[in-house]
Amino acid sequence: MLKVLKFGGTSVGTLERIQNVATIIKKIKDDGHDVIAVVSAMSGETNKLIEYAESYSKMPAPSEMDMLLSSGERVTSALLSIALNEAGYSAISMSGGRAGIVTDERHTKARIEYIDTKNMKESIAEGKVVVVAGFQGVTQKGRVTTLGRGGSDLTAVAIAGAIEADVCEIYTDVDGIYTTDPRIEPKAKKLDKISYDEMLELASLGAKVLQNRSVEMAKKLNVNLISRSSFTPEVEGTLITKEENIMEQPIVSGIALDKNQVRVGMYGVTDRPGIASYIFTALADANINVDMIVQTVAVDGKTSLDFTIPTTDLEICKTIMHKFEDEVEKFDYNEKICKVSIVGVGMKSHTGVASKAFTALANENINIRIISTSEIKISVIVEEKYAELAVRALHDAYDLDK
Amino acid sequence: MLKVLKFGGTSVGTLERIQNVATIIKKIKDDGHDVIAVVSAMSGETNKLIEYAESYSKMPAPSEMDMLLSSGERVTSALLSIALNEAGYSAISMSGGRAGIVTDERHTKARIEYIDTKNMKESIAEGKVVVVAGFQGVTQKGRVTTLGRGGSDLTAVAIAGAIEADVCEIYTDVDGIYTTDPRIEPKAKKLDKISYDEMLELASLGAKVLQNRSVEMAKKLNVNLISRSSFTPEVEGTLITKEENIMEQPIVSGIALDKNQVRVGMYGVTDRPGIASYIFTALADANINVDMIVQTVAVDGKTSLDFTIPTTDLEICKTIMHKFEDEVEKFDYNEKICKVSIVGVGMKSHTGVASKAFTALANENINIRIISTSEIKISVIVEEKYAELAVRALHDAYDLDK
Repeated sequence: MLKVLKFGGTSVGTLERIQNVATIIKKIKDDGHDVIAVVSAMSGETNKLIEYAESYSKMPAPSEMDMLLSSGERVTSALLSIALNEAGYSAISMSGGRAGIVTDERHTKARIEYIDTKNMKESIAEGKVVVVAGFQGVTQKGRVTTLGRGGSDLTAVAIAGAIEADVCEIYTDVDGIYTTDPRIEPKAKKLDKISYDEMLELASLGAKVLQNRSVEMAKKLNVNLISRSSFTPEVEGTLITKEENIMEQPIVSGIALDKNQVRVGMYGVTDRPGIASYIFTALADANINVDMIVQTVAVDGKTSLDFTIPTTDLEICKTIMHKFEDEVEKFDYNEKICKVSIVGVGMKSHTGVASKAFTALANENINIRIISTSEIKISVIVEEKYAELAVRALHDAYDLDK
Repeated sequence: MLKVLKFGGTSVGTLERIQNVATIIKKIKDDGHDVIAVVSAMSGETNKLIEYAESYSKMPAPSEMDMLLSSGERVTSALLSIALNEAGYSAISMSGGRAGIVTDERHTKARIEYIDTKNMKESIAEGKVVVVAGFQGVTQKGRVTTLGRGGSDLTAVAIAGAIEADVCEIYTDVDGIYTTDPRIEPKAKKLDKISYDEMLELASLGAKVLQNRSVEMAKKLNVNLISRSSFTPEVEGTLITKEENIMEQPIVSGIALDKNQVRVGMYGVTDRPGIASYIFTALADANINVDMIVQTVAVDGKTSLDFTIPTTDLEICKTIMHKFEDEVEKFDYNEKICKVSIVGVGMKSHTGVASKAFTALANENINIRIISTSEIKISVIVEEKYAELAVRALHDAYDLDK
């Protein structure tokens, strides 16, 4: 098999941990597989460089930040190669550019346009472990770029797709995806398999291990992703794959919790045609990710709008809301809420999934403020103080500990 | 004017010092010049990375060391660009490869094959300060290489030559070339100008500020080099240029001292044809730089050979000497010697320069063990304990403090 392995900043955070990564790779090579390893910068390095840059400028040129930040991954890739070579496993490090990763010119948040796998294939054919500096590429004109948050995961998934690897293993300090956050519900169980769509909806469960951007790309390129830990490599991890590959689909796969949401209420909104469109276009233009929206029926030519946004976007949102002051009687911002989501592909073909959730929450006297459902997800907004209780009640209601 | 400026590791050793370098560049830009700045890694960074690598392997692959070590200069180039941009001076960082520096494939000690100045010229034409990561290039095939010791100086000189810059200023923590080491002779004076050849012969005076490899390249490419300090940029420094550019040539320019020499004596050598050739070929094959050689006249079919080598090569030299045991009666290694050199292009057209040296040394009762002369240099080997005394006596004899 050809395996693409990705090791994050924590997994390569010290010289000892890089040595540990070399040991993991050696075992996989011994099992007869070909390996492309994608590495992040040693944890702390990137932040140190950002601090350096910010000591000079609040707004350093993105292209210069790319030159600066791309160095950390290069260091790790060389060190890992040296450790592998020393152990008798031939290895070669490659920068993003050298690995053939060509991006657009949006410095610090570039998108991969294509990957020329020639150099990697050549080295794999020579029996070498290819160690790629993650998080980076080059523009058509040859300037170095970085891919933004989660860029190293993205590098690994994109390479796995381009080179048609059998699997892409993302190593972090967490050994897989759980039915819910084990810190909230100790009975949470590690999932063996989960579909891309479920993973995307369970984002908050996977946020620390997998960014949505990478899961989306894995889905698009049909890459089998595995989330596992470099600290317990003997544990199998969770396979994220397409729905068809999962034989027995549970009705509910997991419960996600998102506390970083604000509910915005707009009361007494003049009910003229297109008003909702104006408001949400203004928010979209400011790149604010509006999630759940509820509009109440108009009474006396007035209507109400409720929606949620990420807490980080609250200040920008308030600025935008000012523009609509003439048409709205009252604004209301509530940060003391949270979003609990029940996710499962099995919902599609089962009825009564939602009512079970509502009953479970009602039994705990938890009031639901907003409900929103999709094919494979039911989300509810509840008061923040009920967050953990709601998660546990739902985890229990769907027997996720079984 | 188009100026290429090079700032060494000490000059960019801290964030404050990089800011100071930005201030120097800003002033030069304000004076109406175009600037290409070549930077080293922040002092300490390269050694840290070498330590990292050596913790894994005593013999890391040179190509991996290049990937590793080339990162430090990239960081400095981005940071300096950010500092300049913030001050309102448009700047762009370039890796060696991006600056068009193409080398051979001898990793960790690559030689520059050519420089494609297109990218640099384009940015200069846009009024930008170009900040090049020194010490590195890429092979024809696009793999990163480093240029070995003094590589950043070499980068600057090669760029100045390729782009036909008016001057190449090498900034260190020393403000120029002195008639002798001021720590030995406080009356030593800074030279305004000196020829390439004199500089090469005065290597030990310039060793801390200029490597011979860079001076040789400057001579070959006819680049006007200036050695000056980034800590006292108001001081003019020393211009190293071709002989024709120096109107009034002093008879003696400086006195150099080299304590890192060993005198090797071979006594009772069988005087057969080619014996000296065998010996020195064996030493050359081991890359030992043999300096001064004296052969005494043969008596009874036996001869004596005396020569000097750098102290660092002593152990290898001894190993080689063993091969000649059958043909040599006695070997003798003396580390307690030093080489004092009197350098000056004016010697060519003046007589009595050597006799003045011998008189000065004799007046101090310093015995000369070996003498060797070239067109512009007289070197003598004396006992190491007389090193400083010899330097001061000669400095005085040629009125270098005047």
